[in-house]
Order: sequence, then structure tokens, then C-alpha cells
Amino acid sequence: MLFHNRVEHLQTKMKTAGIDAAVLYHSRDVFYYAGTGQPSVLLMPAQGKPLIFARRAVQWIKRDVPPFLEVVEAGGLTPFVKYLGDYGLRSGILGLEEDMLPANVYLKIREQLENFQLINISPLVLEQRMIKDEQEINLLKKAALMFTDVHKAVMEYARPGISELELAAEISRAARKAGNEPLPFMRTWRMLPFHDGNIASGENAWEMSGLAVSITGVGMSNSVPWGASRRKIQKGDLLVVDITLNYQGYHSDQTRTYVIGKAAKDQLRLYNSARQVFDKVYANAKAGIKASELYRVAEEEARSLDLLSYFQGCGNDRAPYIGHGLGLEGDELPGINKGSSIILPANCIFTIEPKFIVPALGAVQLEDMVWLKENGRELMSEVPHDLFEIK
Amino acid sequence: MLFHNRVEHLQTKMKTAGIDAAVLYHSRDVFYYAGTGQPSVLLMPAQGKPLIFARRAVQWIKRDVPPFLEVVEAGGLTPFVKYLGDYGLRSGILGLEEDMLPANVYLKIREQLENFQLINISPLVLEQRMIKDEQEINLLKKAALMFTDVHKAVMEYARPGISELELAAEISRAARKAGNEPLPFMRTWRMLPFHDGNIASGENAWEMSGLAVSITGVGMSNSVPWGASRRKIQKGDLLVVDITLNYQGYHSDQTRTYVIGKAAKDQLRLYNSARQVFDKVYANAKAGIKASELYRVAEEEARSLDLLSYFQGCGNDRAPYIGHGLGLEGDELPGINKGSSIILPANCIFTIEPKFIVPALGAVQLEDMVWLKENGRELMSEVPHDLFEIK
Repeated sequence: MLFHNRVEHLQTKMKTAGIDAAVLYHSRDVFYYAGTGQPSVLLMPAQGKPLIFARRAVQWIKRDVPPFLEVVEAGGLTPFVKYLGDYGLRSGILGLEEDMLPANVYLKIREQLENFQLINISPLVLEQRMIKDEQEINLLKKAALMFTDVHKAVMEYARPGISELELAAEISRAARKAGNEPLPFMRTWRMLPFHDGNIASGENAWEMSGLAVSITGVGMSNSVPWGASRRKIQKGDLLVVDITLNYQGYHSDQTRTYVIGKAAKDQLRLYNSARQVFDKVYANAKAGIKASELYRVAEEEARSLDLLSYFQGCGNDRAPYIGHGLGLEGDELPGINKGSSIILPANCIFTIEPKFIVPALGAVQLEDMVWLKENGRELMSEVPHDLFEIK
Repeated sequence: MLFHNRVEHLQTKMKTAGIDAAVLYHSRDVFYYAGTGQPSVLLMPAQGKPLIFARRAVQWIKRDVPPFLEVVEAGGLTPFVKYLGDYGLRSGILGLEEDMLPANVYLKIREQLENFQLINISPLVLEQRMIKDEQEINLLKKAALMFTDVHKAVMEYARPGISELELAAEISRAARKAGNEPLPFMRTWRMLPFHDGNIASGENAWEMSGLAVSITGVGMSNSVPWGASRRKIQKGDLLVVDITLNYQGYHSDQTRTYVIGKAAKDQLRLYNSARQVFDKVYANAKAGIKASELYRVAEEEARSLDLLSYFQGCGNDRAPYIGHGLGLEGDELPGINKGSSIILPANCIFTIEPKFIVPALGAVQLEDMVWLKENGRELMSEVPHDLFEIK
């Protein structure tokens, strides 16, 4: 019933939007509606049963998908004209994931379906995916609980003399053993974070790469200039560990800040400021509130702490968001942004992630996932919110 | 000079092909011509100096790129009309990476540059990237040498009772410590292999997922159904470990086959058949030979061994290739395919990867990277070609 309900929900939205059919190529969307991560393409009419097309692993896909889905053995550029005709569609409006589909595939489809107007279906899919069902919430919870082992690994291995790289190797191992499927999905065709996260210690914590206006680390080479580097961790360092994990397709994202040795007063004060912003946003998070209001609350708190110019970045490079949704992708709706008009629904799950980046002092971040319930809210991870001192 | 020569080479090709300018968005292409992996866009006229555009990490990019490249602080959908005008281009033919650029970016560019005809520049770029220079060969060598530690980890940790997943965790850790940047790049917008590879033991070795017609493993869930699973390795199992690593942007790809305990006669015979195919193809590999000829040699050898129906797959699912090029992406030119018309040039680097997949018996694969020299050839890895018995 799960997949049937999801398909029906999208079909209702498509009818409302005047979309006659959609062809879904992006694996995360196919997985959401059809339950298979095997390479395949989903043809979804606004009315009638969807079809799934695959060139390989056809028997496997038949085992994966719900019974109402027929599997057709054919490749991704199947002459959809014929199949659309079977639904009575000879012209109309066709939805494609225009944010993910490469231009050459798009152009071939346009050539094939010249009677159809093509539009971007992704906003409808992402809007639907924003609200999680019970099974998804359980998987997101399991994804978040893997951080218990990640945190243990940091507490065990981080020490003066170990490199960020060696620490990343231990973190990666611990997460994998906990069940991490180390392929974090992001709805982008551009570059990804490493599966073992953005690990930044000492001065690396205030070097922001172009990956994100955040604590990115500096990486190992010019090829992918973020994540762990060969820098050896030193006594007195602040150490930020920000990772996205993936459990059976569902993503968790968490950041904790550590200090090597005893925290200096200014380190503790800076960290507690981030924690204070977190708590304030968390207390205000409830179904029905505007996402932009949560950002405003965070910014207000940073201002009252006299830390606005280090809030969510540094100087002119400050990112106007305080969190983001998670699910089948590591960054999805709702974005908790300054300019967002989204009203947060019950059963959306998102991060709260205040950070302060202060050159020459260090950087701190606390990031956790929050599940907005009909009434109230719940944290997904079990790792405490302290600044952890590593003796 | 390195980057200058690369840019000049592409510009010459563009002039020959009648392409007036190109806008390169794909990070691996930007990295090749400009030396930075930071998110940025390269505007390349057929004549004149290229410009690089970036919205973030601008100072960092200025440190990365060669002095002849000017960095412009602006985002990826910069009004290129103006900059093309500065080159005297008000209309003409513009190259884009149509295999990687998503449709919505493509459509915005088309709208912006209505006087330009858009074409796919990727074939020219990939043709150039097929032939490696000295620095690239050195990095590919270093990437291949990381497999020494991967192999050691398999020999140390693979044993009856350990799961494929636990073994993957140890392999991942060993490779990371050896310098692996665990983000294997593939020139596809679709799904990727895990950075810790396709690990398949026992019956998992003959379950082919849709990732590739190859030994894929079955994975942990429906979300990404390949790579390591929770299956516990057993005495008598064949174990195939196929991984792509990345060293400073350059990829290595290797497969070794192990047996848990002493190899049975039929296991050893099957493995030695793969090894015989490898040796035959290797002996024939030289600059100037057709890629398709190497495939033919491999197929001929498999036929003479009476194993054709298990060669490169099983039954009707057999892949018509015996190897593929590597460089800034894990699968690039030259494809060593049945239907390829490519004549192999000196200083291309590719895999030779014969495999036999025999249901109920097991699967074997030997994959290594070969550097074609002006005269002769060289293996890139130092791991021997044996069927390794794990006592």
C-alpha cells in the first residue's frame, strides 16, 4: 500500500497541475515510488498504472517492486511515444526531472515527443517527499543512531599527532560497520562531500572551500579541496566533524565539535553560543511555523550574543540558512532559509546547524536532526550536545 | 606550461571542428584545464585566454590556477553574452558538456545565448584526455600502488565468519590511509559504485545487479543494490574484490580474486583461465592496435578454453568489452570494446579485466591497469596475479 499511496499522491498533484504524465529517471525518485534502486525508468501517467523500464537486472527489479507495477524490459530511451499512446496520450504536458536529467537525454526525449510540452516535475516530487511517513521516520532514526558509533570513534582515535586523514579512515570504518551505505546522495549534478565528511581541525576550520559556506576542511589535493587533510591534530585544537550518513537510502547529517585537551575559556564560550542558538531554534521549531522565522530566531540570538559577523560563516561569506531537510537525499525540502516561504509541516525532518567561524580562534558547530511532530518535536540522534574534551 | 599546453590543444581541436567557444561546467574538465577542483566554470574561446568564473572561494582558486587564467567573481549562470562579446563573438557555435549538464542549466544558457548554436564539446575533451602526459602517468601509478595496501587488508581480514561489510570497512580504512580520496568520479549522472568497491563472495558473485554486466555484489538494501552485503564469508568461497581508487584526482581500478581456504581444482582452473585471457590480451596490447582487436583476442581465448558462455558475464548477459580507460574519471576513453573503432595511442592507460561468472561454482576476475608506451607496455600495480588462498 505504501508505494501505491505514494503513486496516487503524485498523480493527484499532477492532475491539479495539469501534467499528463511524467518520466522519472533519477534513481532516488524511482526508489521512492517503486522501491527499487536498480537502474530503471518510471513512466507515470496522471491516470492509470505506472510502468517501469529496465534493460538489466529485470528479474531482480520484479522482486523489488510492488505487484501493481509492471516491469518492461527496455532501456531508458524507450520509444515512450508508444507507451504514452497506450494511456491515450498523443500530446500534452510531460514532466521530467530537469534539475537532474542531462541535456543530451532531455534533447533526445524532446525530439521523440515533439507533441508534448516538457516541464520540470521535480518541485512536485520534492514537495511530496518533504513529509515523511512512518517507515521513513524509522529509517531516518536508524540513520541518525549510526552517529553513536561515529562519535565513539572520534573519542577513541582523535588525539595529538593523528592526522585528519587517519581519523577519517577510522570514522569511515566505524560508520560502515554500523551499516552506513557510503554513497551520500545530493540532488545536484555537481560535486559531493566525501562520505567520511568534512573534518577540520585547528586553522583548517576557518578555511572555507567552495563546497559550501560552512566548515568544509581543506582536503588532500586540488582535486577535491574539502574534507580531511594530512594535517596532524594538535593539543588545543578545536576539531569539527560534520558527516552525512546513509541507512537503506535515508540520510542523517550531524556535526559535533571536539577540543583536544581541556577547552580554553574562549573556546567553551564560543561553543556554548552555538549551543544556545541551537536550543533557541529547537524550542521554537513546531509544525505551522515559517521556515524563515526559525532563521530569524537564530540570527536574532547570534546578534544578542554579539557574534553576528561570525554566524553561519565569516564576514561577507555567511550563509543565510540555519538548516535543511533530509530524506532520500542529504539536502532536500524544507530549507530553513532566510528567504523561505515554506510553512513547516508536521512530519518533516530537518537539521538545525548553528556555526561560528572565527579566524585565528577556531570554528564550532552543533548540528542535529529534528523531527517535527503534530505536537512537539524530537531529536533523532543520541549523541549529547557537549563540547567534548579529548584527554 | 602544463595547463597552457592543454588549453592550446583543445583550442586547436575547437578551431578544426568549427567551435567558437566552450563553457565547461563539469568539475573534472575544469580541473584538467585549470588545475582547480573548486566549483567554478571555465569559459574557453577557440582563440584568446580562457576565463574562470566562481562565486565562492575566489582567493583559493586564484592560488590554484595558472597565472594566465583570469578569475572572475561571478556565478555559473553569468551573462556569458557579455564575455563572449569581449572575444568578438556575437553568434557562432558554442560547446557545452551536454552529457553532464542538467537540462535546466542547458535551457537557461540556450535562452541567454539565442544567437549561438549549442553542441556537445565532451567528445573533444575526452579524446584529448585519453592520452596522458608524464604528470598524469605518475599520478595514475601512485593511484595503482595504493592497491598494495588494499590487498594486504584483504589478506589480513578476510576469513570465515567476517561479513563482506566488515571486510569493506577494513578495505576502506586501508585505502584511505594510503591516500585514497574516496570519491570515484564516473562520467555519468546516474548511480555510482561504492568507494569501497564491489565485494562479492560465494553465491553473491553470480548475482549481477544493474550497475554493470559484471561481478557487482548485492549490497545492503534495495537502495543501492551492489557492493558489500551482510553475508558472512565462508570456507571454500571465492571472493572477488573490485575497487576504484582516486589519488589526487586520478583513478585506479583493480580486481583480485581470493579463495577462503585451499582452492578446489575447478576454482583454480577457472581462475587460471581468466589469467590466461589476461596474459594473452596483455601480450597483444601495443600502440597502434585497434581496441576491438584486443576484445577479439580475449573472446577467441575464452572460446578456445570452452568458456565463452561465461565470458564477461553469463549466458545472455555478457558485456562486449574487455577493459576501459582511466584518468580523471574511472571509466573513460579508450573503451576496449567489441565495436570500438579506436586505434590505441601511445600513453593511453586502460584496464584489462577478464572475468568468468559461473552460477553455482563462483566467479573470478583479474583486472589490472596497463600503460601503453611508444614501445611496449607496463603494468601499473604491484600486486601479483595469483588466485590468493586465505588460510
